[in-house]
Amino acid sequence: MTDSTDSPTNSTANCPTDPQALADAVTQAMWSRDRASQGLGIQILSVKPGYALMRMPVRGDMVNGHHTCHGGFMFALADSAFAFACNSYNQNTVASACHIDFLAPAREGDVLEAEAVERSVSGRTGVYDITLRTRSGKAVALFRGKSYRIKGEVIAGLEQVASSH
Amino acid sequence: MTDSTDSPTNSTANCPTDPQALADAVTQAMWSRDRASQGLGIQILSVKPGYALMRMPVRGDMVNGHHTCHGGFMFALADSAFAFACNSYNQNTVASACHIDFLAPAREGDVLEAEAVERSVSGRTGVYDITLRTRSGKAVALFRGKSYRIKGEVIAGLEQVASSH
Amino acid sequence: MTDSTDSPTNSTANCPTDPQALADAVTQAMWSRDRASQGLGIQILSVKPGYALMRMPVRGDMVNGHHTCHGGFMFALADSAFAFACNSYNQNTVASACHIDFLAPAREGDVLEAEAVERSVSGRTGVYDITLRTRSGKAVALFRGKSYRIKGEVIAGLEQVASSH
Amino acid sequence: MTDSTDSPTNSTANCPTDPQALADAVTQAMWSRDRASQGLGIQILSVKPGYALMRMPVRGDMVNGHHTCHGGFMFALADSAFAFACNSYNQNTVASACHIDFLAPAREGDVLEAEAVERSVSGRTGVYDITLRTRSGKAVALFRGKSYRIKGEVIAGLEQVASSH
Repeated sequence: MTDSTDSPTNSTANCPTDPQALADAVTQAMWSRDRASQGLGIQILSVKPGYALMRMPVRGDMVNGHHTCHGGFMFALADSAFAFACNSYNQNTVASACHIDFLAPAREGDVLEAEAVERSVSGRTGVYDITLRTRSGKAVALFRGKSYRIKGEVIAGLEQVASSH
Repeated sequence: MTDSTDSPTNSTANCPTDPQALADAVTQAMWSRDRASQGLGIQILSVKPGYALMRMPVRGDMVNGHHTCHGGFMFALADSAFAFACNSYNQNTVASACHIDFLAPAREGDVLEAEAVERSVSGRTGVYDITLRTRSGKAVALFRGKSYRIKGEVIAGLEQVASSH
Repeated sequence: MTDSTDSPTNSTANCPTDPQALADAVTQAMWSRDRASQGLGIQILSVKPGYALMRMPVRGDMVNGHHTCHGGFMFALADSAFAFACNSYNQNTVASACHIDFLAPAREGDVLEAEAVERSVSGRTGVYDITLRTRSGKAVALFRGKSYRIKGEVIAGLEQVASSH
Repeated sequence: MTDSTDSPTNSTANCPTDPQALADAVTQAMWSRDRASQGLGIQILSVKPGYALMRMPVRGDMVNGHHTCHGGFMFALADSAFAFACNSYNQNTVASACHIDFLAPAREGDVLEAEAVERSVSGRTGVYDITLRTRSGKAVALFRGKSYRIKGEVIAGLEQVASSH
């Protein structure tokens, strides 16, 4: 995405039309701005249209008073996977509501994977299911997110930020 | 709670019987172990039986690809307030499920407050409502958490950790 | 609302501008078409802008295999209160998602009350809290609904239906 | 299950040990007592351990003020499928909380199918996903239910009721 800031051409002209290429471009654009996911130590394993797979090791600073991973960090990983899945079409989309069921605790040193799959998109809203698993495949949380499409595009948004400097 | 690690007496003998004093003691015990809430920059403003009020400034490393506070950090603040409210009776209690509605974005520099109030406790389960507001009083998220009481006590748990050294 | 079907004048010209009068008119219009709520034996006690209070006796045909009120009928009462509260501004609004926590069983012969209050409205979406209580005031369920405003108006919608005959 | 009411033998002695046979017996026992599901016109298509598939035509008395199926009746069908799936092991289990996302309206005359699948069971709690579809296969609602196992058994419960006459 660094190209687009240097280029005099219109960014939308450069916008890939192949769905997977578009998802890849959006992923890079979002990731470069997403200090939160970067700081959490999240790794993107795969993003496809309507889909994302991410990984995050549970660090010592993510552990709560019960000696288990604070629910906020489990939620955060699921929420990042949700965000990358629902923005993969390059239409700015935000979380409207999320529901998480905690099934089992995660502990320091566990490596969590979040897999986000699209269940429904209709009009401005969508529903995504995100499953959080440990590396052994054990499900530790089930997350369901409702997305809401707002104005603007992910890559065009980056462009506007760049041109405002 | 540092007393309990030095004291040869039984910790439950020292356990306050006044509900507010118990809530205070539990709060200190949980906080001392809660590296996650500490690392998030959360401040405890008040904990009462079934109630908690906390504050967290939105830092630069909490901002996502839409230039707004990552939902995971908003959730984490609410979840911490939920945890301190539902553990305030000194019975180990965990989050079973949480639902969050995002009403408005929060931005870097905003100071968020989470107020947790108990709506219901019956048997092992409880329901808590947590409202997230900016300092101006604007609600930015509504969180509803279902708690589940497990075995053990918060302060007794601390004791066991201390005696294992 | 039967007037509007007979009247040659434009219905929106007759639309009350006082918020409570508008809520009353909308309530009558919705109720007259709402065979479901009528068939459930629901009674409207009060509707105000963003607010509704309703009552429903638990009938023998609402009891499930555990000898308690089927969750679907508890949900239905809450959902009706939600619908009347969020449509009280005369803008067609539907339920986008609902969450219900069951706190205690209700039994045949219990009379349930559902009180719906608005927690947030912003853009097209809103959040409403509905509490289900028995007549003794005991809470038996907590319901949170997300509303979504669609095209059209409640009273104008009635008019269009009438004029199509 | 009519046998058990006539039989002088202990019902648990007659309780099938094969999981599918047990699920069948529980289904019959629950259904015979479930006036709510019967009155709603629900048909059971299949119940297996942790699974249920049911059908319900949308009747005229299920239609609300927007001329679409009242959310309460869509919820009720999903909730019945949930109940039969999570009780299929013959351990009394109730709904603790449910979340439903409405994707598209259903109309009078539509025949809805609810398919309940188990996502997780651990200790006393479980998570089930129920998808509501029209006969054409279009998803109209996604329901996620949290189950909670209480004391007693479904078939033994029937026995006690029978012996109290």
